[in-house]
Amino acid sequence: METPTRETGGFADIGLARIDTDRTRRTGLPEVVFAAGKTPDAIVATMSTLYATSGFALATRVLPEYAPGLIARLPGVVYNESARTLRLGTLPPTGHAIGVLCAGTSDLPVADEAADVLEAFGHVVLRRTDVGVAGLHRLVSDFSELESARALVVVAGMEGTLPSVVAGLTRVPVIAVPTSVGYGAAFEGIAALLAMLSSCAPGIGVVNIDNGFGAAALAHKIAIGS
Amino acid sequence: METPTRETGGFADIGLARIDTDRTRRTGLPEVVFAAGKTPDAIVATMSTLYATSGFALATRVLPEYAPGLIARLPGVVYNESARTLRLGTLPPTGHAIGVLCAGTSDLPVADEAADVLEAFGHVVLRRTDVGVAGLHRLVSDFSELESARALVVVAGMEGTLPSVVAGLTRVPVIAVPTSVGYGAAFEGIAALLAMLSSCAPGIGVVNIDNGFGAAALAHKIAIGS
Amino acid sequence: METPTRETGGFADIGLARIDTDRTRRTGLPEVVFAAGKTPDAIVATMSTLYATSGFALATRVLPEYAPGLIARLPGVVYNESARTLRLGTLPPTGHAIGVLCAGTSDLPVADEAADVLEAFGHVVLRRTDVGVAGLHRLVSDFSELESARALVVVAGMEGTLPSVVAGLTRVPVIAVPTSVGYGAAFEGIAALLAMLSSCAPGIGVVNIDNGFGAAALAHKIAIGS
Amino acid sequence: METPTRETGGFADIGLARIDTDRTRRTGLPEVVFAAGKTPDAIVATMSTLYATSGFALATRVLPEYAPGLIARLPGVVYNESARTLRLGTLPPTGHAIGVLCAGTSDLPVADEAADVLEAFGHVVLRRTDVGVAGLHRLVSDFSELESARALVVVAGMEGTLPSVVAGLTRVPVIAVPTSVGYGAAFEGIAALLAMLSSCAPGIGVVNIDNGFGAAALAHKIAIGS
Amino acid sequence: METPTRETGGFADIGLARIDTDRTRRTGLPEVVFAAGKTPDAIVATMSTLYATSGFALATRVLPEYAPGLIARLPGVVYNESARTLRLGTLPPTGHAIGVLCAGTSDLPVADEAADVLEAFGHVVLRRTDVGVAGLHRLVSDFSELESARALVVVAGMEGTLPSVVAGLTRVPVIAVPTSVGYGAAFEGIAALLAMLSSCAPGIGVVNIDNGFGAAALAHKIAIGS
Amino acid sequence: METPTRETGGFADIGLARIDTDRTRRTGLPEVVFAAGKTPDAIVATMSTLYATSGFALATRVLPEYAPGLIARLPGVVYNESARTLRLGTLPPTGHAIGVLCAGTSDLPVADEAADVLEAFGHVVLRRTDVGVAGLHRLVSDFSELESARALVVVAGMEGTLPSVVAGLTRVPVIAVPTSVGYGAAFEGIAALLAMLSSCAPGIGVVNIDNGFGAAALAHKIAIGS
Amino acid sequence: METPTRETGGFADIGLARIDTDRTRRTGLPEVVFAAGKTPDAIVATMSTLYATSGFALATRVLPEYAPGLIARLPGVVYNESARTLRLGTLPPTGHAIGVLCAGTSDLPVADEAADVLEAFGHVVLRRTDVGVAGLHRLVSDFSELESARALVVVAGMEGTLPSVVAGLTRVPVIAVPTSVGYGAAFEGIAALLAMLSSCAPGIGVVNIDNGFGAAALAHKIAIGS
Amino acid sequence: METPTRETGGFADIGLARIDTDRTRRTGLPEVVFAAGKTPDAIVATMSTLYATSGFALATRVLPEYAPGLIARLPGVVYNESARTLRLGTLPPTGHAIGVLCAGTSDLPVADEAADVLEAFGHVVLRRTDVGVAGLHRLVSDFSELESARALVVVAGMEGTLPSVVAGLTRVPVIAVPTSVGYGAAFEGIAALLAMLSSCAPGIGVVNIDNGFGAAALAHKIAIGS
Repeated sequence: METPTRETGGFADIGLARIDTDRTRRTGLPEVVFAAGKTPDAIVATMSTLYATSGFALATRVLPEYAPGLIARLPGVVYNESARTLRLGTLPPTGHAIGVLCAGTSDLPVADEAADVLEAFGHVVLRRTDVGVAGLHRLVSDFSELESARALVVVAGMEGTLPSVVAGLTRVPVIAVPTSVGYGAAFEGIAALLAMLSSCAPGIGVVNIDNGFGAAALAHKIAIGS
Repeated sequence: METPTRETGGFADIGLARIDTDRTRRTGLPEVVFAAGKTPDAIVATMSTLYATSGFALATRVLPEYAPGLIARLPGVVYNESARTLRLGTLPPTGHAIGVLCAGTSDLPVADEAADVLEAFGHVVLRRTDVGVAGLHRLVSDFSELESARALVVVAGMEGTLPSVVAGLTRVPVIAVPTSVGYGAAFEGIAALLAMLSSCAPGIGVVNIDNGFGAAALAHKIAIGS
Repeated sequence: METPTRETGGFADIGLARIDTDRTRRTGLPEVVFAAGKTPDAIVATMSTLYATSGFALATRVLPEYAPGLIARLPGVVYNESARTLRLGTLPPTGHAIGVLCAGTSDLPVADEAADVLEAFGHVVLRRTDVGVAGLHRLVSDFSELESARALVVVAGMEGTLPSVVAGLTRVPVIAVPTSVGYGAAFEGIAALLAMLSSCAPGIGVVNIDNGFGAAALAHKIAIGS
Repeated sequence: METPTRETGGFADIGLARIDTDRTRRTGLPEVVFAAGKTPDAIVATMSTLYATSGFALATRVLPEYAPGLIARLPGVVYNESARTLRLGTLPPTGHAIGVLCAGTSDLPVADEAADVLEAFGHVVLRRTDVGVAGLHRLVSDFSELESARALVVVAGMEGTLPSVVAGLTRVPVIAVPTSVGYGAAFEGIAALLAMLSSCAPGIGVVNIDNGFGAAALAHKIAIGS
Repeated sequence: METPTRETGGFADIGLARIDTDRTRRTGLPEVVFAAGKTPDAIVATMSTLYATSGFALATRVLPEYAPGLIARLPGVVYNESARTLRLGTLPPTGHAIGVLCAGTSDLPVADEAADVLEAFGHVVLRRTDVGVAGLHRLVSDFSELESARALVVVAGMEGTLPSVVAGLTRVPVIAVPTSVGYGAAFEGIAALLAMLSSCAPGIGVVNIDNGFGAAALAHKIAIGS
Repeated sequence: METPTRETGGFADIGLARIDTDRTRRTGLPEVVFAAGKTPDAIVATMSTLYATSGFALATRVLPEYAPGLIARLPGVVYNESARTLRLGTLPPTGHAIGVLCAGTSDLPVADEAADVLEAFGHVVLRRTDVGVAGLHRLVSDFSELESARALVVVAGMEGTLPSVVAGLTRVPVIAVPTSVGYGAAFEGIAALLAMLSSCAPGIGVVNIDNGFGAAALAHKIAIGS
Repeated sequence: METPTRETGGFADIGLARIDTDRTRRTGLPEVVFAAGKTPDAIVATMSTLYATSGFALATRVLPEYAPGLIARLPGVVYNESARTLRLGTLPPTGHAIGVLCAGTSDLPVADEAADVLEAFGHVVLRRTDVGVAGLHRLVSDFSELESARALVVVAGMEGTLPSVVAGLTRVPVIAVPTSVGYGAAFEGIAALLAMLSSCAPGIGVVNIDNGFGAAALAHKIAIGS
Repeated sequence: METPTRETGGFADIGLARIDTDRTRRTGLPEVVFAAGKTPDAIVATMSTLYATSGFALATRVLPEYAPGLIARLPGVVYNESARTLRLGTLPPTGHAIGVLCAGTSDLPVADEAADVLEAFGHVVLRRTDVGVAGLHRLVSDFSELESARALVVVAGMEGTLPSVVAGLTRVPVIAVPTSVGYGAAFEGIAALLAMLSSCAPGIGVVNIDNGFGAAALAHKIAIGS
């Protein structure tokens, strides 16, 4: 049996967590801290261990009210207020470009999370903001530059249409991120999620609602696989 | 109290139904038979009464297996197999044009129901079929003719994107009809319904899933109101 | 291909948004700022650009706590506290009347949003408040004046019955707005939404839950189309 | 402890069922056979035991294809094809009137189940059919007779409005029965169910979708309690 | 047409509401103020008008933080803190008893709303608290006194089982009130609501989640009808 | 790493399946064939391999129309028509008793599946049928015998109350199985499932809707663990 | 009838509750206070009565802000901040081991509730934290010790996979606890709940979302039954 | 505006469809016929046009009962009975490998659809069947070969765990396909879909339930992009 061998060594037990120090080797992605619901102590402990082990540590969903305290306790850390990411170090440049598009201004925090994580992983990010389908000329006016990307992360709330339109325009794989933007029958992102899963334009990979990090992780795996 | 007066006289009791013979005067729309779940006997009785009263009778959701028998029992009746409508007579021409667009070939029965009802109500129908967003050039190539319509009925299943895109292109009011086309997370039309209700393009009126008749009724009220 | 030409020129890029300055020409509706989730800075930047371009700017879903600051920064702006709209300028009078009815007192904020937007777009608004079906005499006592309207915006929460009853009484197109008023099985407006979509009275166009703006936009398109 | 004593004696074990022979004494309602999913053998065995014990047996949800065989095996049994009920004997007349109203012709089977069960329990049933809210004059034209009833069973599918309107007109308690009539966003009766539960007209008791029997049972308990 | 005549006279227009002053005559129930979402000014205006017209005014869902101010402005008003009701006057005694049972201590506010409204309507209320099915002996130990009631309001959250068990024990009509007590798969009362609607014990009338007032209204109509 | 070693050897690849021949050793439960959606060929191939390897093979959800053909092809196989199980051989007697209770006659197929699997696994099964809460005396009359069981599998549809009541009466662990029996708001077992998960009686383990096999598997693991 | 006799004596009525003092004898589990939604006064009254009667009292879901006051009023009480449990006394040691595993650090409060209750009931708890399936080597590295447990409580949020994997590795019965950890399509624990109910690994008993107490109760009943 | 130019020429209007002949150039994927709900005539017309234009035509979701007729009318066509695909021609070999794994035998039709489409698009497909998490040794025994793939399509029903486990083992991008296999709380694939979207293993792209074609399309775009 091969997998167990590959996982040998594999984790650092810090009491409240077993940090998967072998993850980058196995999966191409480092373990990243999902900070939602974690205490500042837990965030510091986990990030310190990750950084000590690998020279890189990243946390997502870090509450703004925790940021000042965390910055004080983790020398060199950088907090991105819109993306709510906390970062120690950056992975080496990959030379790959990834597009990050979003339909409306209200979708920006999710797009920013995706973009920040992609930059942390060493990619060049091409941004397009507020290119929703109610005015398609805003999308197509400078679309061609995006053809050079390895993947396009397309972020949209409300009816979640943008990924379908984009996927009909390009060879680049589209990663769709529904957001919880909208109200009523948008149901906190469900309308956009269902629309993306049901798209008539094939070849779209969907991630969870508001999951900018997940989209970045998939784009990263696609980019480094080539 | 005024309304009751306007409703005076108002119905024909045929035992299993109280036919609202006053409806056209009050609402601009004749009573139309919703045949789903009704027996052929009930359909014949209701249509005969309506036709005798007003010279016009229309039924929707008529099962194909009932059609031959109904045609035999209702002289002059016309059955539209795709739309599943049954019609005795036509209302006078209105001179108004209404557009009926649909995203995919599988949405045709719903679009046909809308178109058939609109023609029965005396309108000119402008059709566009298979103009979904995965290839937008199919939509825009001859879009300008539709600007002359009083309303656009836009039919789409799966992710239900087409009404949003159309509403971003035109001054004509858009009536969105989600269809149950699709599978899995399309949830029998729920994905399209939610997308249409959550559209970022304002000014869309949504009707029930697969409700071609309801869309035609709204388009009719809009057209005759002007 | 015609549409792109019509969209030429088309947007003002202000960094965090691409403002669709061509929208009124294409769709009859100006771009309106959906302020939910936007910062005061973003609201000011967008409204200023819109006003500079067209002499009119409107924002919806503006939080009351932002209002004083926005009023200070946007000279001449008017804030409607119940409707939560912010407005710079008014479009020219259209001479059209639009009805805005609501079932209960708790539905007033949504009805007020619809009415305020309609007045901003130049229409005369006919109001009826607290005319729910538990006491129908309140509705019918002065209904006839509403027959002169181009459209009736009917706002209701809880079981969402009012649009069905109204649509059975009049030729004027009915636009139904479910509200999130109610509790338990009203499910934040879902009960009313489903009831409106499933109405036995045909010819109703439904918009999203609490979407007074969307109803006004549809009424506007219907009114100007005639 | 009192209840157990009252329940002493209490059941007949026939192998595949423990028939609650004490139920009428305790609850005022005899045990009634819910035939859905039961074999003809099981229906015969249960009804025979009930009839032998009490001189009365009633089954609901009996498939039409089973009826001929059951009629052959249960002498004196009566099958109501629309209501799908099977009955041996009738309870003594109560002298009470109960109203059974339904909104549309398609709701008839559910209304018929309620009416048939009420007649089996000895009540006089006052029927009104096809009195839906799209034409309210059909309801109010002969409403006053219903004021003499002990309860009104109001059956409606689609948006389920009728009970709200009726409850606003009368002192008689209203029992609302949503039906699965409708399509799309009617969701097999969910729209009507939620509307009835969320009614702005207070004092409505709701039963399960298509549950004509349950409505009759509640009406019976109300009638005999006075 | 008879109904309109019965409704003649019918309402007091106070601007933000059309108070249905005819409701008691028509339905046996006075108009009651649903205070959720209403401002203190609106509550005072509506209650004052109701009290001036009829000598009785009742409001439900009154926030505790509004109570002191309302008490100061409405002389003689009584606030029930657990039930969240506000009352001016009491209707004359009816001599009827109504039972109010609840499964757990956490269900008390809903049971208290029902009981307070019933007392305001002139009934004698028989209470049982914390008689859930996990220890049935608590229910049956003094159940027999409840047989004298005209109706039993049975309040339960979590799995909502209590009404089924009670309905199996008594001839008195059972009104089931699901509460939002519970967590996770109790889904804010949905589990209890579905259980009550699906009860194997027939003859239960269900009201909305947490709707103690609606249960009291139904019990009142049942009681006065006999 | 220990687990892999324990799993070494572990499976038989028969092309369309990798049969887990090591499962009994690891988990105490043999691999059992879930026949739903499988062709008769696949069922025969899998059962033959399992029987050849271990002297025991069991399949669940075997369609009755497949049974004759399978019996012809698998010598010695036994088909239980109500349970829809197919069995080759029986595991040695364990000497443990397990109770299987069901609320109504319509729940029998699910209870039979649980009972048949338990007997195949070598247990003694104590049955109680039709002991629903609408007549509790049917449950308590011979309950004490069940105290000797290692576990009680309690099967109920509709409102799913029975497990809550049973768990309040006994020390024996209760395994609750919701069934899809019921209609309307029973939602194919969802009402019962939610009620069981939300039970006020603690210590209930819930399995999937209609999952008699899963309940038996859990009861088996509990029984053999002691 | 036996049950009533066994329940004789059975409860202490303290006004707002009927405390089931007979529960341990009947079910093996003492009555435990579900403190959510209860006032501090109610918590003190109930715990005091339970402790006076039996020498043991336990409350779950106790808000941290209530803890200091409760500690002051209940001498000897112990509050577990992560588990949110409040305890007076401990039941005698059972000598049984129960495993408590959790997938991620964010699931700790639920796992802590289970562990704390199990210790209160006298069991030895074996903990494993952060052993989620994204790095399975963390689970298997020291799994074998868990084989000595009477039951394994497996806590997981997000996709809820861990119980399936664990159940495929061991003979010990698995009790699965979904948590509300996650966002978007995790739907406050629904994703994990459905995954656990649908597990391909048979023999898993599922409890409500975040219901660490329920899992402990089931584990306790399994452990003491052997 | 660039996009319109790229789409110039762009479609073949065959009456009931506007075939997007430009799609391969724009998106890397040819237009593929979604045959569900289409008549044999429509399938023949569309495939013939596609084949005449490009030398390749593929249809999915082709009903087996249509296959013989279609084979007779479309010379050279190949029907894959498990995958339900119909194919004319094959695209040139790409030299890329794509893995297709499925959790259980019942998931095979969906996995076969993915595999057949991938082969039609010129890829080498590496298959693994019945490697579900209830016996992980079946997955890891020959996992290393899959590391050479450009993407892994991982198909699973029931609780949908397999993609999470696979994504924790490899650098290759994982495309997760939930299937409708399972019953009860698997809700026709919803359990698996939610689990995949909520996976704790990052970097998974999810497609619609049972959407083997969509997974293949995404894998193809990933593969050709590198």
